[in-house]
Amino acid sequence: MTALWQSDAAGIAAGVRDGSTSARAGVEQCLARIAATEPQVNAFTSVLADRALRRAGQIDKHTRRSELSLAGVPFAVKNLFDVAGLPTLAGSKIERDTLPAARDALLVRRLEAAGAILVGALNMDEYAYGFTTENTHYGTTRNPHDLTRISGGSSGGCGAAIAAGQVPITLGSDTNGSIRVPASLCGTFGLKPTFGRLPRTGSYPFVASLDHLGPFARTVADLALTYDAMQGPSHDDPGCARRAPERVTGELGLGAEGLRIGVLGGWFRNMAMPEALAAVDALAQALGTTRLIEWPEVERARAAAFLISNSEGATLHLNDLRRRAQDFEPLSRDRFLAGALLPAAWVQQAQRVRHWFARRVARSFETVDVVLAPATPCVAPVIGTEWLEIDGKRLPARPSLGLLTQPVSCIGLPVVTVPVWGMNPTLPHLPIGVQVIAAPWREDLALRVAAHLEARGLCSAPIAKLN
Amino acid sequence: MTALWQSDAAGIAAGVRDGSTSARAGVEQCLARIAATEPQVNAFTSVLADRALRRAGQIDKHTRRSELSLAGVPFAVKNLFDVAGLPTLAGSKIERDTLPAARDALLVRRLEAAGAILVGALNMDEYAYGFTTENTHYGTTRNPHDLTRISGGSSGGCGAAIAAGQVPITLGSDTNGSIRVPASLCGTFGLKPTFGRLPRTGSYPFVASLDHLGPFARTVADLALTYDAMQGPSHDDPGCARRAPERVTGELGLGAEGLRIGVLGGWFRNMAMPEALAAVDALAQALGTTRLIEWPEVERARAAAFLISNSEGATLHLNDLRRRAQDFEPLSRDRFLAGALLPAAWVQQAQRVRHWFARRVARSFETVDVVLAPATPCVAPVIGTEWLEIDGKRLPARPSLGLLTQPVSCIGLPVVTVPVWGMNPTLPHLPIGVQVIAAPWREDLALRVAAHLEARGLCSAPIAKLN
Repeated sequence: MTALWQSDAAGIAAGVRDGSTSARAGVEQCLARIAATEPQVNAFTSVLADRALRRAGQIDKHTRRSELSLAGVPFAVKNLFDVAGLPTLAGSKIERDTLPAARDALLVRRLEAAGAILVGALNMDEYAYGFTTENTHYGTTRNPHDLTRISGGSSGGCGAAIAAGQVPITLGSDTNGSIRVPASLCGTFGLKPTFGRLPRTGSYPFVASLDHLGPFARTVADLALTYDAMQGPSHDDPGCARRAPERVTGELGLGAEGLRIGVLGGWFRNMAMPEALAAVDALAQALGTTRLIEWPEVERARAAAFLISNSEGATLHLNDLRRRAQDFEPLSRDRFLAGALLPAAWVQQAQRVRHWFARRVARSFETVDVVLAPATPCVAPVIGTEWLEIDGKRLPARPSLGLLTQPVSCIGLPVVTVPVWGMNPTLPHLPIGVQVIAAPWREDLALRVAAHLEARGLCSAPIAKLN
Repeated sequence: MTALWQSDAAGIAAGVRDGSTSARAGVEQCLARIAATEPQVNAFTSVLADRALRRAGQIDKHTRRSELSLAGVPFAVKNLFDVAGLPTLAGSKIERDTLPAARDALLVRRLEAAGAILVGALNMDEYAYGFTTENTHYGTTRNPHDLTRISGGSSGGCGAAIAAGQVPITLGSDTNGSIRVPASLCGTFGLKPTFGRLPRTGSYPFVASLDHLGPFARTVADLALTYDAMQGPSHDDPGCARRAPERVTGELGLGAEGLRIGVLGGWFRNMAMPEALAAVDALAQALGTTRLIEWPEVERARAAAFLISNSEGATLHLNDLRRRAQDFEPLSRDRFLAGALLPAAWVQQAQRVRHWFARRVARSFETVDVVLAPATPCVAPVIGTEWLEIDGKRLPARPSLGLLTQPVSCIGLPVVTVPVWGMNPTLPHLPIGVQVIAAPWREDLALRVAAHLEARGLCSAPIAKLN
């Protein structure tokens, strides 16, 4: 029998609902696994054992737990989500001094309302500005599949906690790739919903017009279950669309049947190393497609996302950059400072590029339902890697891990990242993710394709072997 | 009997509809008046006699002219509206070299569809960046009520053409006050609708998130008639709201009955000279209100509008500012160049101020329907005036004419400017405008109050005596 800590969320919830196990047992196993693996992985910045055990006790006594879709499921959140009683660190040293949050973030409340149990807060790149979770203040989060390598970022703790078997569900954020990059490098499933789908109430912002929240999981079904429990608008987030929930859990069984699927060409192949191309091509072959889709001016769209984030991120921290720059993460401090000096004219031109690109890509979705692209140019680099060789160019490693995700999030498209294994012959133990991308508000289509690929054994998110 | 050129639009249209006069006669009188007054006023940059006479002929032969609300009414537009066959100058020397427009702007087409007849294009500040219509390329547009004085701007030609009796209707644009300032200084009625109400398709932009189009007229009824003929969304302007027309012509008779009316205090009184305060107070007394309404942080909202316009305006002309700065209007060139150098962080903070201000002002409209404020700090200054003394401070005259309009347009509120006379004892021949301001989408309320004031003889827009 599978131990509770190895089980997926759907399995735990089923056991708690029918009484064959208890929420308390699930939380205890989860806390034990965290304790056993944290010295190697360093995914958590706070473990909330008391809170989680108290909440498990409530669930176990709950008279109607049979109705809870996530009954007793432990989960953890990137430490930019508000958690009552904790300062919301957002990976920084500076925010340690802020008052503890008075209330949990809205999505935490929604998951707990569905029966899930928060067990802790997870490490990240400072202020979400990075793709590696090499955090000088809280230590690097190591990749559970190879402890010499990065977990990716900025939601690195989210990917690592899933891959290490610490929790079956985590919540992260994605502005330029911060869910998709760690999902790719840690070999987990991840969902970045359409911009405006999930309310961001009670989370620390980075770039208001680009920030998305979303789940990580070890199965597509868990991803859908978690996403469904979080859907619904909120007036407190002006960027959140007024859309009623569109539940996807029941749709997964439809698979890829009848969908028009393509593979993104140009930039999305040029900036990918062989293992990334092999992963996309393996999935395309399994889906029976050879159709190449070209988006125009992808490089400019990526540059636009880069400039907008650089500038808006810096604006958010302007007072601290002026007064205490030495307290910022050394790995991103210079980029923040540069962002504070960008001319408005550049950023406004970037916004124009972005809107033009969104219109052109929308047109391209008239002839295709889902497109595939690599999530990262390569498998997880070794911790401390400074340079990557991509497309014959020597590029700075840390910002370049987002080369393939930025053009997609910059126009808010929904993406499921699916993990593929064994694509790099010299590093066969490492996963790499593929982005399954749909038109706005069509999370259902991306999730159906992901479920199809998972059911055929092409993608999976196994727990790493840690001793 | 009133000559056709002295008649209001409603009167001309009634005569053309019932056959008691002809569209051709109206256009001929209008062209004669333009020819007689242009040497003094300089409101027009193009007079389209052939086009107007041809169109008049069509109207006169039109079998169903009885249905046209503006049958045979001559009108003219600021030269930033596209007019088929003319380059769209937007007041600049640079745009002289551009290709002629292939098609009329959408609002020109809508007015002509209602029977109106375009007779020409009107002078303005270069690229709409000014409040004086002292245009070095095309000459200063002089105030018909005092030819030594400015007409205001940037839609100075629009205000002057109405005041000179050249046409009964003009169309202008207002980003920071460009309809309200010339309406105030020339003594005409003017309507700046809610941001997003009228589509801007086929007009030269200045600041996409602040640009409004709207009419000038000599009566409130003409303003409403023209506005009603132009309402309705357009997919071609992404800033245009998807709202069905909400006709106001039939509502004017309701007057100010039952409306809660206030007077804006603080900034709106501090930055006004005695004649501007006297005008507001005279209208408030007539409306029986003594209620003072305070908006918070108005000075910051004005600064935000200033920075956003400065930066976005410069971005729009960045290539020309780099390559041929010497071809820009000397009176605004330095401001444009400064705008190109603003840091993005400043502009982003300005946007935050603006959104905060919009929310706070929206709350203030829960307890009041319409508020009054001066449209300009003073009556029309003498041409070439460099400095104004306002609130004990010596301020640059040209940008400061918008001190009282910028905080209102910056959050897109609808405003009718109404002209009041004799408020400055040493300059009794000069008008000054009062802004009648309503909550978003409530043009009807502002127009009802304006109609009430006009009916009681407190506001009027007489034709200037020119020999």
